[in-house]
Amino acid sequence: MAKNSNFYPVVLAGGRGTRFWPLSRKKRAKQLLALDGKQTMIQQTVARLLPLASPKQFWIITNDDLRPAILKQLPKLPKLQVLAEPLGRNTAPAIGLAAFLLLREHPDAVIGMFPSDHVIANEKSYRATIERAAEIAAAGENIVVLGIRPNRAETGYGYIEAGNAFSGNALRVLRFTEKPDAEKASAFVAAGNYFWNSGMFLWSARTLANALREHLPKTASLLEQIAAAFGTRNFAATFRKLYPKCENISVDYAVLEPRSAKGEQASNLFCLPADFGWNDLGSWTALHEHHIAKNHPLDDNVVTSAGLFVLNACGNYVHAPGKFVAAVGVNDLVVVETPDALLITTRQHAQDVGRVVKYLDEKKLHKLV
Amino acid sequence: MAKNSNFYPVVLAGGRGTRFWPLSRKKRAKQLLALDGKQTMIQQTVARLLPLASPKQFWIITNDDLRPAILKQLPKLPKLQVLAEPLGRNTAPAIGLAAFLLLREHPDAVIGMFPSDHVIANEKSYRATIERAAEIAAAGENIVVLGIRPNRAETGYGYIEAGNAFSGNALRVLRFTEKPDAEKASAFVAAGNYFWNSGMFLWSARTLANALREHLPKTASLLEQIAAAFGTRNFAATFRKLYPKCENISVDYAVLEPRSAKGEQASNLFCLPADFGWNDLGSWTALHEHHIAKNHPLDDNVVTSAGLFVLNACGNYVHAPGKFVAAVGVNDLVVVETPDALLITTRQHAQDVGRVVKYLDEKKLHKLV
Repeated sequence: MAKNSNFYPVVLAGGRGTRFWPLSRKKRAKQLLALDGKQTMIQQTVARLLPLASPKQFWIITNDDLRPAILKQLPKLPKLQVLAEPLGRNTAPAIGLAAFLLLREHPDAVIGMFPSDHVIANEKSYRATIERAAEIAAAGENIVVLGIRPNRAETGYGYIEAGNAFSGNALRVLRFTEKPDAEKASAFVAAGNYFWNSGMFLWSARTLANALREHLPKTASLLEQIAAAFGTRNFAATFRKLYPKCENISVDYAVLEPRSAKGEQASNLFCLPADFGWNDLGSWTALHEHHIAKNHPLDDNVVTSAGLFVLNACGNYVHAPGKFVAAVGVNDLVVVETPDALLITTRQHAQDVGRVVKYLDEKKLHKLV
Repeated sequence: MAKNSNFYPVVLAGGRGTRFWPLSRKKRAKQLLALDGKQTMIQQTVARLLPLASPKQFWIITNDDLRPAILKQLPKLPKLQVLAEPLGRNTAPAIGLAAFLLLREHPDAVIGMFPSDHVIANEKSYRATIERAAEIAAAGENIVVLGIRPNRAETGYGYIEAGNAFSGNALRVLRFTEKPDAEKASAFVAAGNYFWNSGMFLWSARTLANALREHLPKTASLLEQIAAAFGTRNFAATFRKLYPKCENISVDYAVLEPRSAKGEQASNLFCLPADFGWNDLGSWTALHEHHIAKNHPLDDNVVTSAGLFVLNACGNYVHAPGKFVAAVGVNDLVVVETPDALLITTRQHAQDVGRVVKYLDEKKLHKLV
């Protein structure tokens, strides 16, 4: 595996990750937490890509709340390439801006778009998949999406329906499918040619720029103006003024779905099936299951604490560093303690934690969000 | 209601109350906690008796771990009358020592023995009952026990089986009955002449001293020697040397059961039925139910916190002062947080909390017990 001087990882790190409240906060979003191991999620994301690209090839798109912490966590990355959006506009403007910025000096750049808060079990397989995807993306107007081979009928993800084989194990994409209901999800998994949309895409900067010009012309023009100001004293003001005018839309909706509508051959959309142990850690429950699969703890209790006593308790996730924890007669709970907050929920209800943050936002309890 | 110069409340405050861990600790036992209101349990115990006796009539029997905190919590009581047992010997030596101490200067003293960690809803009724009990106790060799009219088939208490009426609503005692099984408990409640043993007894110092001389002669002799040293420079050494030699036995076993065996007439044992809203707060669950009955909180959630969000959660007891608490989709839990510990259990399992303390004792985790 070697560094590829044309490969530019763009890490999207503007998300808030409210489902990890109370550990995640506005200024300490999920990607800045060490949920799995000693490194934070964004540190892991960058570390696992560093064999493929040097630090100066990385771009991070985040926001003003998170930028200071990201600069601290990733001191080796060029500060100017850690961009804070004046306002979150979803993934199309974020990755689009990266494309127009890169085009100016690196017309042959291949961009990899990476979420900043996922875990990958098999990094070698991950990098091999990306190298292959970058090859395909470098050849013409191709767009490559990494498709995770589903191991359960998950209803929380978008699916990619794959068609004919392209080359190697790459497949042509037939269409993108929204989050299915349980019945559909089961059918997808049984069919064998459906993959989870990982949110990891590879394309050349030129392909992406052209796609935006075609499908989001107004936003593309704004992004080009912002990119043109990069490195000048007007950049901050231009960014602040024009970026909020961009359409608030995901790259999936803005580019991939219209492209897939052109048909399997004309779309130049490819899915590279991936089996590298991907987990998006979408909730405390997902994190819990990840720890169970990785570490096989006794009675499925995953506990961070200064000491532990367990009696007739299993399947609990407890985060209370510094405290002695006693769990007696409780099952399948999620309990998370921070200096100012205590969350008590269940594995089943952990996806509702965003509701707590919504309440805190509404009540303007700023210190807690 | 007037103060009775012959009435000497003896408050037993040597218990550890491990079932309120992690709030209760060796040096901060249940009776020193404000579990119900602003005053601690022992402060409430003394306050509700103060209309009947002046501070100098109170005696407290506790231990070295708790004495400093008790002196702080009850600054108006005579320090010398807050006695620290060198070693816990159960209730017979504790109350017996009080009897021999009082006999020396107050031969007509009537002693009321009171646990230090119970709650009483109706204090007027409580004091009226005690005044009546003190009258009966003052007349000869009588022993009066306050019997709580049962409102459920509780299996955790001892029961008093009452016989014929004596005078007023006082009844003669037929026998004391151990903690019954569920079937027996139901039969007791249905029968109507069974009462919960409240652990509150009244008798003259002379009656008690004589009963101990009769039933526990060796211990009685040791206690007399300790009492004789009271007020001398030898007291501490004598207490430390002789008290551990006393039998480790409850006054129920040592005196009341043998007395009841003499028969309904000869025993001079009386039960005064009480309806003053008694609760011994035997566990977090009992405390929770007490709060529910008293304050009728929304969805039976009793929460001490700096803020609260509840979603699909009911019947929970949460103690996390200073923290914002979010309870999502959880029911009937007991969660108690302190600076060094976090207990997670259920209403059903809260009686097992003593097991945590046992574990901590065994592991010599002294800071946590």
